[in-house]
Amino acid sequence: MFNGEPQTARPIRWAMVGGGRGSQIGYSHRAAALRDRGFALVAGAFDIDPARGRDFGVGLGLDPARCYSDYQALFAGEAARPDGIEAVSIATPNNTHFPIAKAALEAGLHVVCEKPLCFTVAEAEALQRLAEARGRVVGVTYGYAGYPMIEQARAMVARGDLGAIRLVNLQFAHGFHNTAVELDSPSTRWRVDPRFAGPSYVLGDIGTHPLYLSQVIAPELKIARLLCARQSFVASRAPLEDNAMTLMQYEGGAFGTVWSSAVNAGATHSQKVRIVGAKASLEWWDEHPNQLSFEVQGEPARVLDRGMAYLHPDALALDHISSGHAEGLFEAWANLYRSFAIAMEATDRGDAARLATLRYPGIAAGVAGVRWVETCVRSADAGGVWVDYG
Amino acid sequence: MFNGEPQTARPIRWAMVGGGRGSQIGYSHRAAALRDRGFALVAGAFDIDPARGRDFGVGLGLDPARCYSDYQALFAGEAARPDGIEAVSIATPNNTHFPIAKAALEAGLHVVCEKPLCFTVAEAEALQRLAEARGRVVGVTYGYAGYPMIEQARAMVARGDLGAIRLVNLQFAHGFHNTAVELDSPSTRWRVDPRFAGPSYVLGDIGTHPLYLSQVIAPELKIARLLCARQSFVASRAPLEDNAMTLMQYEGGAFGTVWSSAVNAGATHSQKVRIVGAKASLEWWDEHPNQLSFEVQGEPARVLDRGMAYLHPDALALDHISSGHAEGLFEAWANLYRSFAIAMEATDRGDAARLATLRYPGIAAGVAGVRWVETCVRSADAGGVWVDYG
Amino acid sequence: MFNGEPQTARPIRWAMVGGGRGSQIGYSHRAAALRDRGFALVAGAFDIDPARGRDFGVGLGLDPARCYSDYQALFAGEAARPDGIEAVSIATPNNTHFPIAKAALEAGLHVVCEKPLCFTVAEAEALQRLAEARGRVVGVTYGYAGYPMIEQARAMVARGDLGAIRLVNLQFAHGFHNTAVELDSPSTRWRVDPRFAGPSYVLGDIGTHPLYLSQVIAPELKIARLLCARQSFVASRAPLEDNAMTLMQYEGGAFGTVWSSAVNAGATHSQKVRIVGAKASLEWWDEHPNQLSFEVQGEPARVLDRGMAYLHPDALALDHISSGHAEGLFEAWANLYRSFAIAMEATDRGDAARLATLRYPGIAAGVAGVRWVETCVRSADAGGVWVDYG
Amino acid sequence: MFNGEPQTARPIRWAMVGGGRGSQIGYSHRAAALRDRGFALVAGAFDIDPARGRDFGVGLGLDPARCYSDYQALFAGEAARPDGIEAVSIATPNNTHFPIAKAALEAGLHVVCEKPLCFTVAEAEALQRLAEARGRVVGVTYGYAGYPMIEQARAMVARGDLGAIRLVNLQFAHGFHNTAVELDSPSTRWRVDPRFAGPSYVLGDIGTHPLYLSQVIAPELKIARLLCARQSFVASRAPLEDNAMTLMQYEGGAFGTVWSSAVNAGATHSQKVRIVGAKASLEWWDEHPNQLSFEVQGEPARVLDRGMAYLHPDALALDHISSGHAEGLFEAWANLYRSFAIAMEATDRGDAARLATLRYPGIAAGVAGVRWVETCVRSADAGGVWVDYG
Repeated sequence: MFNGEPQTARPIRWAMVGGGRGSQIGYSHRAAALRDRGFALVAGAFDIDPARGRDFGVGLGLDPARCYSDYQALFAGEAARPDGIEAVSIATPNNTHFPIAKAALEAGLHVVCEKPLCFTVAEAEALQRLAEARGRVVGVTYGYAGYPMIEQARAMVARGDLGAIRLVNLQFAHGFHNTAVELDSPSTRWRVDPRFAGPSYVLGDIGTHPLYLSQVIAPELKIARLLCARQSFVASRAPLEDNAMTLMQYEGGAFGTVWSSAVNAGATHSQKVRIVGAKASLEWWDEHPNQLSFEVQGEPARVLDRGMAYLHPDALALDHISSGHAEGLFEAWANLYRSFAIAMEATDRGDAARLATLRYPGIAAGVAGVRWVETCVRSADAGGVWVDYG
Repeated sequence: MFNGEPQTARPIRWAMVGGGRGSQIGYSHRAAALRDRGFALVAGAFDIDPARGRDFGVGLGLDPARCYSDYQALFAGEAARPDGIEAVSIATPNNTHFPIAKAALEAGLHVVCEKPLCFTVAEAEALQRLAEARGRVVGVTYGYAGYPMIEQARAMVARGDLGAIRLVNLQFAHGFHNTAVELDSPSTRWRVDPRFAGPSYVLGDIGTHPLYLSQVIAPELKIARLLCARQSFVASRAPLEDNAMTLMQYEGGAFGTVWSSAVNAGATHSQKVRIVGAKASLEWWDEHPNQLSFEVQGEPARVLDRGMAYLHPDALALDHISSGHAEGLFEAWANLYRSFAIAMEATDRGDAARLATLRYPGIAAGVAGVRWVETCVRSADAGGVWVDYG
Repeated sequence: MFNGEPQTARPIRWAMVGGGRGSQIGYSHRAAALRDRGFALVAGAFDIDPARGRDFGVGLGLDPARCYSDYQALFAGEAARPDGIEAVSIATPNNTHFPIAKAALEAGLHVVCEKPLCFTVAEAEALQRLAEARGRVVGVTYGYAGYPMIEQARAMVARGDLGAIRLVNLQFAHGFHNTAVELDSPSTRWRVDPRFAGPSYVLGDIGTHPLYLSQVIAPELKIARLLCARQSFVASRAPLEDNAMTLMQYEGGAFGTVWSSAVNAGATHSQKVRIVGAKASLEWWDEHPNQLSFEVQGEPARVLDRGMAYLHPDALALDHISSGHAEGLFEAWANLYRSFAIAMEATDRGDAARLATLRYPGIAAGVAGVRWVETCVRSADAGGVWVDYG
Repeated sequence: MFNGEPQTARPIRWAMVGGGRGSQIGYSHRAAALRDRGFALVAGAFDIDPARGRDFGVGLGLDPARCYSDYQALFAGEAARPDGIEAVSIATPNNTHFPIAKAALEAGLHVVCEKPLCFTVAEAEALQRLAEARGRVVGVTYGYAGYPMIEQARAMVARGDLGAIRLVNLQFAHGFHNTAVELDSPSTRWRVDPRFAGPSYVLGDIGTHPLYLSQVIAPELKIARLLCARQSFVASRAPLEDNAMTLMQYEGGAFGTVWSSAVNAGATHSQKVRIVGAKASLEWWDEHPNQLSFEVQGEPARVLDRGMAYLHPDALALDHISSGHAEGLFEAWANLYRSFAIAMEATDRGDAARLATLRYPGIAAGVAGVRWVETCVRSADAGGVWVDYG
C-alpha cells in the first residue's frame, strides 16, 4: 500500500498546457501529479485566453511571471530559467496534441499527453522517434490503467489462471450524447468536429480506453485484422461516428470486439472489459473499479476485492487505503503519474534497471491507440470490411 | 394474473415424440402443457428404445397401447381412434424435426416443435405452406418469450418509451462447453455433429433465442444485411462453431449484434437483450427474469419488477403469482403452451378474431430462425462478409 | 434432477378447503400438488359462497357432487365414499386453520395447512398430539424451504463450511402495506384484524418464513430467550403490528435478529437469510432464489448457482431443470408437495425408514412458528423485554 | 463540481499528531488536507518514536526543526514561532484523543480529531465547552459524510421525498476480525484493549459511522431510548465487544437499528444506511458510494448516480469529476477537510454568515458519538435493557 512517502528524490518541476478554469480533465491531471509530491506545479499556459489563464494559475499559487499566454511562450520562457520546468502535461483539444508534444520534446521536456496522441500513425511514429532521439518520457493518460484491479487482471492472465485467451469483449458505451448536446456544450462540440477531434469521435475518445486495458491485461494478443462498422445516429455528426462496433481477429485465433458509443441511452459509463480464456473469465467494470469478477468454468463465480491479501503483490502495491474503502479514478491517475515521475527521474539518471520494472502507458501505447483508430476508420469507410492490421 | 382456471373448453388430446426418460426438455414440455389443463397427455413415442419409452409412458399414467414405438406408429395408431390425439410436441434431435413435423401436419395434427424447426429455409417454408394448407397451428418453443417482462418490453417499445430504436445488443453466451464435454455427454454430442445438429451449433442452439426475443420486443426492425464470424475454439467441433459474433444492419439505420457462445467460461447463461432507443434503453437478463432494467437518458436508472401495478396489462396478464415471488422458466413455458392451446382451439372452431389477439412463436418465428442461421452460416463461410438478408 | 416421473405408487386423492376463485394461494397449492401427479384433486370446499365454489370446482374438472359447501360437508361426504379423499389442504383465513385441521385429523385425513397453523401454542400442541395419535401427516406450507439453495445452505452448515454459527440475520420486509391498503383490499383486511389474523400481523404472516428457513439451515440452534419490539406505523392496525424487530439469544452464545415488516416502502419482498459462522457466511435472497452467496473470510466472495455440479447432491435432487434456467417459487412448492405425498404414502404403509430420509415442514415446524409468534407478542406487549423461550 | 481552485484566501498552517510511517489513517488525513491547498503541512509529531517521526516528516518536505518528539513539544514550539501552526489533526490511538485535543484547544489551535473524540460524555462536553470558550473549530473525521450521495440523501429527506421517516436501518459489519488477528496485528491490538480503545470496540470504532450518516440525513430524529446487546465472539476480547446490535426508539415513533460487527465473516465493509419513510426508502452502501438507491412504494426502484444533473445542487457541489467516473473515500475526506478549512478561516475572521452555510461533523457530532457509545455500553452491561437517552 502506498502511503504518500516520496518515491522520487524531489518533485519534478512541471507545467500544464491547457486544463484551466472550466476544464474537468485539468483537475484530474493536477490532483494526480501533485498528490504525492512527484511533481511540483511551477508554470503553465492554462487557457486560450491569457488573462484568464494567468488568473487561474495565480489562484493555484503560481508566480504570475510563469503563467504564459501559450505553449510556445511557456517552453521558451522556462528554457531561459535555471529552475525551468522539466516536464509538461498537455490537456488541450485533440488537434493540438501533435504540435505541442513535438515542441515539448524538442524543448527537451518530458511529456504527459491526453489521448489520442495525434491523428495519424505517421505523426505518432514521428513523436515516438523524437522521444527516443531525445531520450524523453512520453506518458499517455489512459488513466483507468492505474487501477489496482487491472494490475490484478494482468497478473492472473500472466500466470495462466484463465488458460489460453479466446475472447476479448470490450466496451465503453455511455449515453450522454444521445441527442445533439453539442449545440449547447462547448466541451462536446469540438469532439464531434473533425477539425478538432480528428478522424473519429467515439473510437478515439473512449474506445481506446478499454482497448488499452486489454493490451495491459493480455499483452501477448496481437491484432491480425479488424473490421469496424460505425454510425452517426445524430446525423449532424457525420462523418464522425457516435457509435461503432469493431471486430478483431487476433493472431493465433483469439477474437475480440469493441463497442464504442455515446448514444447508449441511460448508461452512465458502461466501460467493461471481459477476457475469456479456455478455463475461466475475468470481467471488470469501471463504475465499480474496486471489484474484479473471476469465473472459473464449473466453480462458483468469485468477486475479488481490492486490497485483499489474496491479490497479487503488484496489485496491492497500487493501493492507497485498505480493502472495503472505495478508491476511485483519482487514485488510478495518481498511480499513473507516480509511474511517470519515477520513469522521468530514472530516465534522467539513466537508470535502465529501474525503467525495466515500470509498467505505464508510454509512447508505444499512444502509437497503438492512434493505429487502432486509423485502422477502424479505414475499415468503416470502406463499408465495414476486414482490413489487415499494422 | 392467471390462477389456473380453464382457458379452453376442454384439454386438447396431446402426445409427445421424444422427451422420455433422461430428457430434460421433455419435462419442460409436459410441465407446461399439463400445468393448467390446456392439454391432456394421452399418447406418446417417447424414446428411440420402444420398451423404455413404453415404460416411461405408463409411469406417466398412459394406456400402454398408446405408447408407440415411433412417430409413424403414433400418428397412424391415433388416427385410427375416435379419441385420437389432436396435437403433438416434438422434442427430438434437430435432424428429425422436419420429417416428424411434416408427417404430423399431414396427419392433420397441430404441432409444437423444438427449435430449430429444420435445417434450411426451403424446408421451413415447405412446413409453413403445409401448415397453412392444412390449417394447423405450429408452435415453436422459444420459451423465454413467455416471460411477462418480455411482454412488458414489447409494450414499452410499442408505445414509444424508448424513442426510435437504434441498437439491439443480444447475447446468449454460456461456458458449459468450454472443453470437449461432448466426449462424455450424449446430449451434447449430437449438438456438435452436423449430421444431427444441422449447419450450426451455437447460432441455432442458443443464438436464435435472444434473436426471437428482439423480434417480439421490436417487431418493426427488419434485417437488411448481416455479417457473421464464427469460431470453433474446441477444434474437433469444426465446421460447427462454438462461438459466433453476428452484426446486423437493419433497414432504416438501426444496428444489432448477437453474441452466441458455448465457451464463455464461467458464465451460467448470460442470455441478455439490450434495446437502445433514442431516448432510453431496456435490458433483460434471463437469469433474473422477473426484472427489467429501464434507463432513460438523464434520469435515474429504474428496475421494473414483475407483477407490479405500474406494468402494462398485457404483462400482468401473464403472471401466475403476485410480485416479489420469483417466477421461473416453467411459468414462461406454461404461458407459451396456454397460447398454443387457445390458438389450436380457436383454429379448430375458425375463430379468427380470437387468433388475432394472440401473440406466440408460430411457424413464421420458426422460419425466421432458420433463415437467420442459414444466413449467418453463409456469411461466416464466405469469410465473415456482409450478405443481404432474406 | 427431477423430471416428472412418479414418486409414489399412485396419486393421493386430495381436496382443498378454501383457495377458490380470487385466491392467489389456492393456485399455488394446486399447481404444486398436481404438477407431478403426487396428488389428484377429486373434491373441495373452495369458497365461503357454495355456488361460486361449486362453479370453480367444476371448472377444474371436478364432479359437482364433490364440490361441497363447507369443510364439515366435505369431510362427511368423502368419508362416505369408497374412493373418498385421503388428504386435504387448508387455504383459508388464519382463524379457521385450527378447527378445520382438527376436524380433518379427526376424520383420518392427512393435512396440508397454511401457516400459521393456529393462534396459540396450546392449540398447536393439541393438533400435534392429535396428528401423532391418528398417525397422520401434517405439512405446513413454508414454501421457500423447497428451494434447492436452501437445501444447499443446510448441507454446507452441516458439514462445517461456516464453522460454528455466530449470527443469524433474518428479514422479510416488504413495503406493500405502507399505507392503509386494507381499506380497499379484502385479502389484506383480514390480515390486520385480530379476529381473523390472530395475535400478530407481520410476525406471523411473514416473519415465520425466514425463521423456518434458519431452522432448516442451522437446526442445532435453539432459542434461549428473545426480545421483540413491534410498531403499528399505520395506526389503525393496532394492536397488530406492521413492523417488528426480534432479537434472539440462542443457547451456546449465537445471536439472531428477525426484521418483519409490511411498511418497508419500495421493497418488493426483501426476504433475506444471512448465516454468519466463525469462518464464513451464507446469504440467500428469495427474489433471486437460484443463487446463494458464500463468503469465506479472507477469500473472494463466491456466488453459488443452482444446478451446478459443485453443489451437494441433496440440493441437486430438488432441481427441475439444469443450471442457468430460472426456477421459481412454484418449483419450491412442488418440492414441498412431493415430500408431502411421499410422507403420506410412507406413513400409510408404515415405512419408517422412508420417513426418516425426508425433510419437510411438518407439525413440529407448525408448532415452532406459533411458539415464536406467541413469545414475540409476549415480549413486545411487555414493553420489548427479554423473555425466556419455550 | 469542484476543480481545485482555492476556497480559502491561503492555506492554513497545519500539523499532525500521529499518522506517521505505517499509519493508514495518516495518509488519509494528509491526502485530504493537502489536496486542494486548504492546508499546508508545516509541522508534526508523527510518531511515538521521535527519530522515526522526524525522518518521516523530512521525507514529506518538512523542516527538521518542526518535526517534534511529541504533541507538547509541537504545541510549545509552534506557539513560539511567528509562522506557527494554526490547526492540528490528531490521528493517534483513542485514549490519547482527549488530552491532545484539550492541549491543542488550550494552545488556541483549531483541531481535527479522529473519532471517538474521547471516552466519556463528561470529557466530550468538556472539550465542547473549551472549544466554544476559545472559539476554535473542532472537526471530527466521520469521513463518509463527505460523499455527495449522502448530501443527496439529506436533501431528499429534507424536501419530503420519503414522507415521514419511520425506520432507520444501519450497519457497519465487516469480517476482518473474525479470529484473534490482534495477536499478530498491532493496529488491531489496541482497538480491543480497553486501556487504549475505551469502553467499546465495534460500537465506537465503526458503529458511530453509519450513526452519524443517519444524523446527517435525518437530523430531526432524536433518540428517546435505546437497547444494546453486545457479544465477544472472540472471547479474549471481553469485555470489549466484536459484535453488537442496538435498537433505537426515536421521539415521535420512528424506530432504528444499528448492527456493528467485526466478525461478519466474508464481508468487506458492509456499511449500509437504509432510511424508510412513509412513501419511499433510500439506501446507500459505502462500497459503492457513487450510487444511491431510491425506492418509492408502487414505482420502479431507482438508482441515482453521482454527478447527474437530476441531483440536488448541494450534492453536485461536492463532485470532483463528472458522472460515471468513480469517486472514492479520498474525495469524501477532501470534502470534509475543505469544509474544515473554510470553517476555520471563517471563524478566524468572525464570519458567522459563512459558518451558517456549512455542514460538517463538528464538536457536536463528536459529543453525540461518545454519548451513543456510552449509552449503548450502559444498556449492554445492564443485560441489554432499554435505557433513556441523553
